[in-house]
Amino acid sequence: MERPGPGPGRKFVFVLCDGLGDRPLDVLGGRTPLEAADTPNLDEVARLGVNGIMDPIRPGVRPGTDVGTLANLGYDPYRYYTGRGPIEAAGVGLELRPGDVALRGNFATVSDDWIVVDRRAGRIREGTSELVRALNEGVRVPGVEVLFREATEHRLVLVLRGEGLSDRVSDSDPGATHEGEPVRRVEPLDGSPEAARTAEVLNEVLRQAHEVLRDHPLNREREARGLLPANAVITRGAGVVPDAPSLESLYGVRGFCVAGESTIIGIARLVGMEGVIPPGATGNVDTDVMAKARAALEALERGYDFVLVSVKGPDIAGHDGDVGGKMEIIRKIDALVGRVLDEVSLDDTYIALSADHSTPCSVGDHTADPVPVAIAGPGVRTDDVKEYGERAAARGGLCRIRGVDLVPIVMDLMFRTKKYGA
Amino acid sequence: MERPGPGPGRKFVFVLCDGLGDRPLDVLGGRTPLEAADTPNLDEVARLGVNGIMDPIRPGVRPGTDVGTLANLGYDPYRYYTGRGPIEAAGVGLELRPGDVALRGNFATVSDDWIVVDRRAGRIREGTSELVRALNEGVRVPGVEVLFREATEHRLVLVLRGEGLSDRVSDSDPGATHEGEPVRRVEPLDGSPEAARTAEVLNEVLRQAHEVLRDHPLNREREARGLLPANAVITRGAGVVPDAPSLESLYGVRGFCVAGESTIIGIARLVGMEGVIPPGATGNVDTDVMAKARAALEALERGYDFVLVSVKGPDIAGHDGDVGGKMEIIRKIDALVGRVLDEVSLDDTYIALSADHSTPCSVGDHTADPVPVAIAGPGVRTDDVKEYGERAAARGGLCRIRGVDLVPIVMDLMFRTKKYGA
Repeated sequence: MERPGPGPGRKFVFVLCDGLGDRPLDVLGGRTPLEAADTPNLDEVARLGVNGIMDPIRPGVRPGTDVGTLANLGYDPYRYYTGRGPIEAAGVGLELRPGDVALRGNFATVSDDWIVVDRRAGRIREGTSELVRALNEGVRVPGVEVLFREATEHRLVLVLRGEGLSDRVSDSDPGATHEGEPVRRVEPLDGSPEAARTAEVLNEVLRQAHEVLRDHPLNREREARGLLPANAVITRGAGVVPDAPSLESLYGVRGFCVAGESTIIGIARLVGMEGVIPPGATGNVDTDVMAKARAALEALERGYDFVLVSVKGPDIAGHDGDVGGKMEIIRKIDALVGRVLDEVSLDDTYIALSADHSTPCSVGDHTADPVPVAIAGPGVRTDDVKEYGERAAARGGLCRIRGVDLVPIVMDLMFRTKKYGA
Repeated sequence: MERPGPGPGRKFVFVLCDGLGDRPLDVLGGRTPLEAADTPNLDEVARLGVNGIMDPIRPGVRPGTDVGTLANLGYDPYRYYTGRGPIEAAGVGLELRPGDVALRGNFATVSDDWIVVDRRAGRIREGTSELVRALNEGVRVPGVEVLFREATEHRLVLVLRGEGLSDRVSDSDPGATHEGEPVRRVEPLDGSPEAARTAEVLNEVLRQAHEVLRDHPLNREREARGLLPANAVITRGAGVVPDAPSLESLYGVRGFCVAGESTIIGIARLVGMEGVIPPGATGNVDTDVMAKARAALEALERGYDFVLVSVKGPDIAGHDGDVGGKMEIIRKIDALVGRVLDEVSLDDTYIALSADHSTPCSVGDHTADPVPVAIAGPGVRTDDVKEYGERAAARGGLCRIRGVDLVPIVMDLMFRTKKYGA
């Protein structure tokens, strides 16, 4: 029998729930929020699918959302995670190239002698795109392309492109606990000539940025209104853009990401997915999950094979120790999955449920506890698991896998993998 | 909610049973010794905890006690195991530094033309510390610090400290089957200048040791009494002391090891634990397990966070094919764990049961069969396993893990891990 080839065929909806995993809670009679919440649709995926537990990175390693999400997409973060700069830069839509050095930044208010008066320039919200335009026109360094892009509120990203650059440079942002101190001079973090040059370039960029911003009409206007001027840029989190092969080059799938925040969109873009934050999606417990379901279904209709739906809410509730809130967002995720189940056929579409890490309400932070995974769709080796939950999943047919295993498993089910050997 | 920080909080008692794993035996109606023995306390840990099976190294790899124990402590032996020299040297209390070359040695009896008459100098037991003192005073090599330390009976350890040394050198000890042959000349095992120099240094050390020992009054006295003189040192098992980060530097825990033999103490010291062999603990089936329980509980009281209790007996019984003996020591371990359960609270203390490898009675040697693991303590995701045994554990919520996973998993439960990513 011929193995069915790739092509317009099987599709994949991957529902990735931030911080979903939890620990048993006395207040829930020894159940976790996921075990206690009424989740008929998630349970349906578990019942029709194959289940297991998953270490996002490896046992005992406590993942951040960035590395946990990268791993869930099949990318080893020890190889492809280079810090938040590239992720945030991709998240705001900058077209990045491998080797670019990307940084996160803030518009800040500094005094004439470079003391940081306010790290967020009075939480400036308006006019930042105009200021960014001025920066992109006014800042010039020989041999290096310098790109600014505004992000939410006072945030921005900054990309340096050129030969002989390095991400091994320190932050100029003194950090939240050091307001009132001077902007830090960027220093090389290793002895390489690339790091030395990048530090020099960055210090010059920040000097010119101050000159451009100081006398900008928008800042004069802010001062006239009694607002703090956005008269400087401070930077942190330098990272080199990784040379990650796209999902399309690896598997021939076109990927689309639906999320409530730009960080997840940035990660998705780094692996070649497109992405959208649909109106109403907020990255919080109040998010409009049906808007996400609609955006996911539309992406399938538009021909994307691999649609990632990220829901941030469980992590927020876990950090807050808010058991009720966590159960509420879990019920919303259940409704989202119900909508997807209504519209797709498990004869040609895979649905996977997973998480980037656990955020137990009893801990209030990320832990290394494994997360439950369920994969439903054509041909999966179903097991006896009848509900989607941390402990039910541990009795499933997948046993215990790693984050980087999940997408390759589904890609193989979709006939998208190459044979190794002959 | 704040994540509970590290500090005097959760504690960990790790009961590591040498060679515990076994295979089904006809004589036990198809059960293993662990399954057949009456173990109410071990079963209590399983019932209250989360269970799984564990490959100490990886599936199909048959571990020695040294590498199995290192892995159980969370250290990849492929990276940190460099042979028995460093372990034995640490076990007898030598203060080692990364890069030291450590060897095991014997006091031996050689003839004037360096033929090994007796590899153990008539199993000398008395006076070895005096002989070691003479060696430490009398042996001098320029540029290299040479340290001798007596071990049990005829055994000793030898450490070379200095620049440009290597552990890639051959044994001077001809081995048990080659008594009557000459002391072997130490040869470099690779082409490096370090190995060549180390071989040269060692040959000179052994030559001087013979000179120091030959005319030592204690040896003259032995000869007068018709005993074989300890007139030479022969060496084996050179290894460089690994640069292993301590458990304290990794997790902020203070570790203490209770064992019946110095090898385990040596491994524990290499990862920064302190350790003791309590009186009555023998490393055999006749060991006083209650002395070990007392020592472990005392260590907890003295503020250690991580107490390793090693019991050698199951391995001895397994090597002997002694089913009854293996069940007897298993019942003793059960009593030890019962004592610990009586004294600690599982609200703030984790108890883990594990093994460094299997030593099936039907085989009489180490095998790669996975070992059963149970972890009880606050917040663990309990499962349906109700007894501690090889096959019961395989149905547990941990599924199948590796030796190096266990300590990171418990350290994460204890809030001792750093987040990876953000």
